[in-house]
Amino acid sequence: MKILIVGAQGQLGRAVDALMRERGHEVVTVGRSSGDIRCDIADEAQLARLWEQVGQVDAVICAAGEVVYAALEELTGEDIESSLRQKALAQINLVRTGLEHVSPTGSFTLISGIPSRDPVVSGSAAAAANGAVEAFVRSAAVEIAPRRINAISPSVFVESLDDFGDFFPGFAPVPVAEVARGFQKAVEGAGTGRTIELP
Amino acid sequence: MKILIVGAQGQLGRAVDALMRERGHEVVTVGRSSGDIRCDIADEAQLARLWEQVGQVDAVICAAGEVVYAALEELTGEDIESSLRQKALAQINLVRTGLEHVSPTGSFTLISGIPSRDPVVSGSAAAAANGAVEAFVRSAAVEIAPRRINAISPSVFVESLDDFGDFFPGFAPVPVAEVARGFQKAVEGAGTGRTIELP
Repeated sequence: MKILIVGAQGQLGRAVDALMRERGHEVVTVGRSSGDIRCDIADEAQLARLWEQVGQVDAVICAAGEVVYAALEELTGEDIESSLRQKALAQINLVRTGLEHVSPTGSFTLISGIPSRDPVVSGSAAAAANGAVEAFVRSAAVEIAPRRINAISPSVFVESLDDFGDFFPGFAPVPVAEVARGFQKAVEGAGTGRTIELP
Repeated sequence: MKILIVGAQGQLGRAVDALMRERGHEVVTVGRSSGDIRCDIADEAQLARLWEQVGQVDAVICAAGEVVYAALEELTGEDIESSLRQKALAQINLVRTGLEHVSPTGSFTLISGIPSRDPVVSGSAAAAANGAVEAFVRSAAVEIAPRRINAISPSVFVESLDDFGDFFPGFAPVPVAEVARGFQKAVEGAGTGRTIELP
């Protein structure tokens, strides 16, 4: 398959990129500041140019989406807005604008995260953005069939425990390589409208 | 209890208002163009003025939040953004800015809707906004205790079948009076972090 990976330069993106190439897929990498194509998917004009350059693909993977972690009383309206914009709106627009560029048997796989299903202190903006992504995936699946769409919802990465471990006390962490297998399952499998939880 | 009802002039808001008064509560109504206080909660400056005028309350109810219904390929980026802004960001900001104005045993009750859990064609923007609200409620509950927060997720209203019935084929509709009882359960009950589904 020809697979577009957005956020391919990030910690998770690199693991997904490596696994997809190992599986024999042709990968086109997209990043804000590196990759085969430069694109900030939160910018609709850049998204339009992305699809002009990409043409047709079999699968779109997104491993990008920043959210703000802070206590609810410290979060600003701007923090919540930017979390919704960067992680939810940008990914939804990636799907919406990419519909005609994905083959009829192809798929979209978006990135969510554990705070929407297992609350943590300081995670309410992340939860909101992830909840939007997961509900969108459930809903869009009925409209884009036979194309498929799923979300991957990982716990904190083993590789990020130094930076984020304190936000997730006692949570089972997940290696990024295992999260990459979640993307493989979504891309090569048959499910749609699902949120795949890892671990 | 002293209860603030945002969107009190709408179809649902009127039913909630009537039930809360019947239950003996003191109600302060808020609307964009009518009510005891005029406020568009999607505007942060107006939100700040709202809380200055309101002072302290025991419960905050929101029955307002517009979303765009359209096929995924017809939705614009602006449609999705405005749905997220009007229904998710505005309600989240209502909670965030109102934390110190709600009594320690008080509660917030937000409005969601069925498309996030039971997909319908043309409902993907609504689903995303509702998914954000529900995940925020689950997450915020752990931060604002002992104050409580819940969401109400109704099916299509019996009273709206003429306008919206075609979007919800075969869905069991719910009378707004029954949805109002969902708000009563959230306000007078003990649950938190929940999405109350109606019917």
